[in-house]
Amino acid sequence: MPRAGKSIVTLATDFGERDPYVGAMRGAILAVNPAAVLIDLSHDIPPHDILAGAFLLATSFDTFPPGTIHLAVVDPGVGTARRPLLVRTRDYLFLAPDNGLLSLALERQPAAAAFHVTAREFFRPEVSATFHGRDLFAPCAGWLSRGIPPDRFGPEAGDLVRLGVDAPARAGSVLRGAVIHVDRFGNLITNLSRAAVTAAGHSPGARPTVLHLGPHRIGTLVLTYGEGPANAPFLVFDSFDLLEVAFREASAAVRLGAGRGAIVELDLESSG
Amino acid sequence: MPRAGKSIVTLATDFGERDPYVGAMRGAILAVNPAAVLIDLSHDIPPHDILAGAFLLATSFDTFPPGTIHLAVVDPGVGTARRPLLVRTRDYLFLAPDNGLLSLALERQPAAAAFHVTAREFFRPEVSATFHGRDLFAPCAGWLSRGIPPDRFGPEAGDLVRLGVDAPARAGSVLRGAVIHVDRFGNLITNLSRAAVTAAGHSPGARPTVLHLGPHRIGTLVLTYGEGPANAPFLVFDSFDLLEVAFREASAAVRLGAGRGAIVELDLESSG
Amino acid sequence: MPRAGKSIVTLATDFGERDPYVGAMRGAILAVNPAAVLIDLSHDIPPHDILAGAFLLATSFDTFPPGTIHLAVVDPGVGTARRPLLVRTRDYLFLAPDNGLLSLALERQPAAAAFHVTAREFFRPEVSATFHGRDLFAPCAGWLSRGIPPDRFGPEAGDLVRLGVDAPARAGSVLRGAVIHVDRFGNLITNLSRAAVTAAGHSPGARPTVLHLGPHRIGTLVLTYGEGPANAPFLVFDSFDLLEVAFREASAAVRLGAGRGAIVELDLESSG
Repeated sequence: MPRAGKSIVTLATDFGERDPYVGAMRGAILAVNPAAVLIDLSHDIPPHDILAGAFLLATSFDTFPPGTIHLAVVDPGVGTARRPLLVRTRDYLFLAPDNGLLSLALERQPAAAAFHVTAREFFRPEVSATFHGRDLFAPCAGWLSRGIPPDRFGPEAGDLVRLGVDAPARAGSVLRGAVIHVDRFGNLITNLSRAAVTAAGHSPGARPTVLHLGPHRIGTLVLTYGEGPANAPFLVFDSFDLLEVAFREASAAVRLGAGRGAIVELDLESSG
Repeated sequence: MPRAGKSIVTLATDFGERDPYVGAMRGAILAVNPAAVLIDLSHDIPPHDILAGAFLLATSFDTFPPGTIHLAVVDPGVGTARRPLLVRTRDYLFLAPDNGLLSLALERQPAAAAFHVTAREFFRPEVSATFHGRDLFAPCAGWLSRGIPPDRFGPEAGDLVRLGVDAPARAGSVLRGAVIHVDRFGNLITNLSRAAVTAAGHSPGARPTVLHLGPHRIGTLVLTYGEGPANAPFLVFDSFDLLEVAFREASAAVRLGAGRGAIVELDLESSG
Repeated sequence: MPRAGKSIVTLATDFGERDPYVGAMRGAILAVNPAAVLIDLSHDIPPHDILAGAFLLATSFDTFPPGTIHLAVVDPGVGTARRPLLVRTRDYLFLAPDNGLLSLALERQPAAAAFHVTAREFFRPEVSATFHGRDLFAPCAGWLSRGIPPDRFGPEAGDLVRLGVDAPARAGSVLRGAVIHVDRFGNLITNLSRAAVTAAGHSPGARPTVLHLGPHRIGTLVLTYGEGPANAPFLVFDSFDLLEVAFREASAAVRLGAGRGAIVELDLESSG
């Protein structure tokens, strides 16, 4: 993973855009490496919502060029015993607290090495107890982008905290999953990946795909939002290859009264 | 339009800041050209609101240096027959769906050439049906920023879709227009440009400028917001040379109960 | 303050992310210096809220590398007699209207020189009366980032406008201050700095720290949010060394019904 000259550092936080926190982090990275290229993934992860942050990272990190450094901070435990982590995968470097924030991304590209970040020479001179984003993670990202090898930042980390996210599970004649994200358009994104659906024995296209969501039975699977029926919910395998419940130019979340955590059941024996 | 080394690519979308979509697009551009300089116009265009996106582009694209690539995605028809476009003007390159999103900008700087983007070698290897921002537009922006000539991306596009926006029209003794944007400050921006007002025979300054908006008659024209009266609406030709209804340090939209689409009528025969 | 090659220009405005204003400013900077590196502090300063902008700047400007140009626009008086300013401090350059926006930052790093920006050759050819962000401040930031010396932009400015912010004051046996910012997490940030508290004779840690906020008496001081009690407010000296009222993973603002401007009183004679 060469890192000559300008490195890309992405930022994902739950700090919002209104407060000084994100600006202060950007400054603290650039103070170490003024040539770092800062790119936002999002700062609108809901406050303290580790799952939302994990989903965001997992669905965008691997579009970036190899060598990109992904810095993520959703950190309700800042200053307590939770460890700051540096994780190396085949193509990327990740900096984040050890609270599960990386776990969905690491399911897609496994950790090749993980370090517990302890090397204070890479921190800001004064480390506050409440803002490790600025005082620890940001300068470490700066040093990493200047080519300091990952193993210089601390000892091997051993086991990492993983999110307790239930994978889709077969229950009788259904594959049961859940809505894991509601996007800005109101689309309900489930954890039923195309791979999980296929592994459960359902071949989309070969037979009807029918999903139950609360009282709703959704039986129309289309390829694009524009092909969906007017005024009725439909299914689509989205750009993350996850089964999604959508409405054409309307919010499925509002229309169906459903949100994150809602249980969905894919009918494995449907004949229409 | 030389494009050596670092190119500027602006992004304008209706994806919001909360979801993975913008981050994924940024990554997909940088994966093709890590030296591209990414600049946001806005990602808070209201969902599916092509007119709002067109207004945003038209009012900011031409402050950028020549050679800038403007990438815009408001795309309710993604994956259907609507065409992805690449448009070259005198100073800029535009990538956007062919749904009218570019039409207001192209009124200000006409298309010199337009291409229907079909060359799959410039797309991501797998093109989803639902996220052309990431899979088609972003990598094409990356390749364009590396100097691939526009005509390599596909055949000439012929006629482009235009927005059905009514121009201001004379009706008896009034020039009738509409509010086309409400900004964050609550200012009501109309489509009555200084040029249209002058062409209709009204000389601001030479005689009183009086605008009717619903039950309101607004007869004070000032040069700056700070000169407006306290607690009364006033008119200003704004920084886009469009006639605007404003309140001093308050929201005209809230105070007057008006929003986008509201009809305004400029009195052409007023003597005060 | 060398400024060879790429300069960092930060932007802080109350323009929001939805309108064309920020994009137009970015373009106007890059039109002068395409190599400028643009970094956002925030564009979500509440409209016309100079104090909020001043707080944002003061709490983030000095994490950036020396030589950074900070451009800030919260400008209800745009186009009136208020002066555009260019201020040089030991490490930074600031561009902003002379309305107090810089005053909290300049308390932390004093002005070494201040200029009234009048040199029209550095403005856009046409300067609107309503958008100096785009037409005056942005191009000046561009020229400054290209190495034009600050004193070329206009005459010395003399006295600058300062915000009328009350410093914490002793009143009998209490140190009285106020909430000056409510952050995204609902934390109530006061103007009681660690230095002010110490100067008033209170040694946090040596004796109990007790703060009164309306009917609430808050007597728990912790080092990190994660150490706070469940379901009760607590105090923390935050990453800006300001005394803050917080709730663990909840909003103190909502729980205590308090916001900016709320009076707080630190008990200087408490024995628990």
